[in-house]
Amino acid sequence: MKLKTLAETGEDALIARLVALVPREEGAAGPGDDCAVVDDGGDFLTLLKTDALVEGVHFLMDADARQVGWKAVARVISDFAAMGGESCRFLVTLALPSAMELGWIEDFYRGMGDCLEKHGGVLAGGETCRVPTGSAAVISIAATGRVARGKVVLRSGGKPGDRLWVTGRLGGSLAGRHLTFSPRIAEGKWLAGRGVVTAMMDVSDGLAADLPRLAQASGCGFVLDKQAVPRNEGCSADQALGDGEDFELLFAAEADADFERDWRRNFPETELTRIGRLVSPDDTEPGEMSGGWDHFREDEPNQIA
Amino acid sequence: MKLKTLAETGEDALIARLVALVPREEGAAGPGDDCAVVDDGGDFLTLLKTDALVEGVHFLMDADARQVGWKAVARVISDFAAMGGESCRFLVTLALPSAMELGWIEDFYRGMGDCLEKHGGVLAGGETCRVPTGSAAVISIAATGRVARGKVVLRSGGKPGDRLWVTGRLGGSLAGRHLTFSPRIAEGKWLAGRGVVTAMMDVSDGLAADLPRLAQASGCGFVLDKQAVPRNEGCSADQALGDGEDFELLFAAEADADFERDWRRNFPETELTRIGRLVSPDDTEPGEMSGGWDHFREDEPNQIA
Repeated sequence: MKLKTLAETGEDALIARLVALVPREEGAAGPGDDCAVVDDGGDFLTLLKTDALVEGVHFLMDADARQVGWKAVARVISDFAAMGGESCRFLVTLALPSAMELGWIEDFYRGMGDCLEKHGGVLAGGETCRVPTGSAAVISIAATGRVARGKVVLRSGGKPGDRLWVTGRLGGSLAGRHLTFSPRIAEGKWLAGRGVVTAMMDVSDGLAADLPRLAQASGCGFVLDKQAVPRNEGCSADQALGDGEDFELLFAAEADADFERDWRRNFPETELTRIGRLVSPDDTEPGEMSGGWDHFREDEPNQIA
Repeated sequence: MKLKTLAETGEDALIARLVALVPREEGAAGPGDDCAVVDDGGDFLTLLKTDALVEGVHFLMDADARQVGWKAVARVISDFAAMGGESCRFLVTLALPSAMELGWIEDFYRGMGDCLEKHGGVLAGGETCRVPTGSAAVISIAATGRVARGKVVLRSGGKPGDRLWVTGRLGGSLAGRHLTFSPRIAEGKWLAGRGVVTAMMDVSDGLAADLPRLAQASGCGFVLDKQAVPRNEGCSADQALGDGEDFELLFAAEADADFERDWRRNFPETELTRIGRLVSPDDTEPGEMSGGWDHFREDEPNQIA
């Protein structure tokens, strides 16, 4: 009998099967949200997140190590942004070939430092270990964050009629933006503070993969105005939907929410675009979106540059 | 010019160089202790730890996946034990080949669950991603723990004259014990609660590598009674000192500390052995210990079974 492999199972189904096998936190948000949310009492909820970068999948060894370090931290901060939170403490695990040059690692750390200084957080600890010769380097970042009690935004709070918005522009990550993006941590916290955002996530696997997740988590369907999706320069509509690694915020807000003018005053350099709306689940046109990334697809490109 | 590689630098020197490059927590213990210790106010200090298992280095793919899952969690709990703490919340990152069988991953999760149920903690979140075909799987575990304020035990509190103790027996991890050991979490918490332990760590790289670290962190030398080191069955003295992955507690206690009788009543199944003492740094005989593991040594065995 051939056993089922990861590539055949897919990421979302895998997570659902696995979490049933271990003791879990009562009342924690997720699995399936951008971060775990845990409540220790007090004025803030704790956010927990782990993420990994794999050589040959998320970065190439000839990439600028300082940019790779930036990206490793920025990806996690982007997840805290998606909850309306802020970043606190980071742990880094480096699984590296023995022949790795020390200068690369130092530059990687400098890049982590750049991002922590700009967007918040400190390095609390780390671990280094060796991978066998010929194996890909794996960089894992785990971090704690926090969000004011009552301000946390999940993926699951959207309602039919809510408008869908996205920050910045999408597509073109493969051309290099995936190493230099700014996590929308200030924007996410500001939106959560306004109290008008009903559901939010960051766009990491492409809008075509992530928008259905946000809608499903909210028990909604969606209508997307593809023409409205803001594209980075030189990107087709398909690239804007499917490239992934945009790290922009996708969120739902009440239809009568009034925040556009204040947004522009607070974030004059970050575009904000209405791209559609949540609807009742019956109103979604089936098959209207394709593209985006599943982390175990066999036909996934092996390298990005 | 040939740049310096990881293998030439060594782990301890690497960590010292890297932590200077990033924003760090004021007043946090370490780097170089078993966990990071952070203070958010309140009755407990927070412990943070990240750790990794690499296929072909820490486990083989034909090992029992449930035991590998146990080991992944138990290693981290052992680090919390070394601080006198307890484990709280775990995050797991799996970087796996696409062809990995789902059954292996489910068994891995079951093993994590076994260890969490027995020794404390819950799974708060996880991440799965793909490594290129032919690359080693990498499993990273990050976790939070806690220790009562005033009870935390660092590596650095030892003083000349303190006695050195070790729990259990050492050596023989390569024969399989590295997959089945029990982290000494109850023992560590009990010792910390007594207030007689001045310095503590878990023995992960072998006593020959770890005892000098504890002594150095405490600004001491040490005298080891090699004959006293408790060995697992079939192990030579060299194996007991150098095999590594013992995950027993090594600690220093005041010379007049009286805890042996209570220990035996509380932990009848865990041996406790006095193996030497801390001395002033000038009193150490140079070169008296060799062996133990450095994670980037080129001559490190590539596989364990």
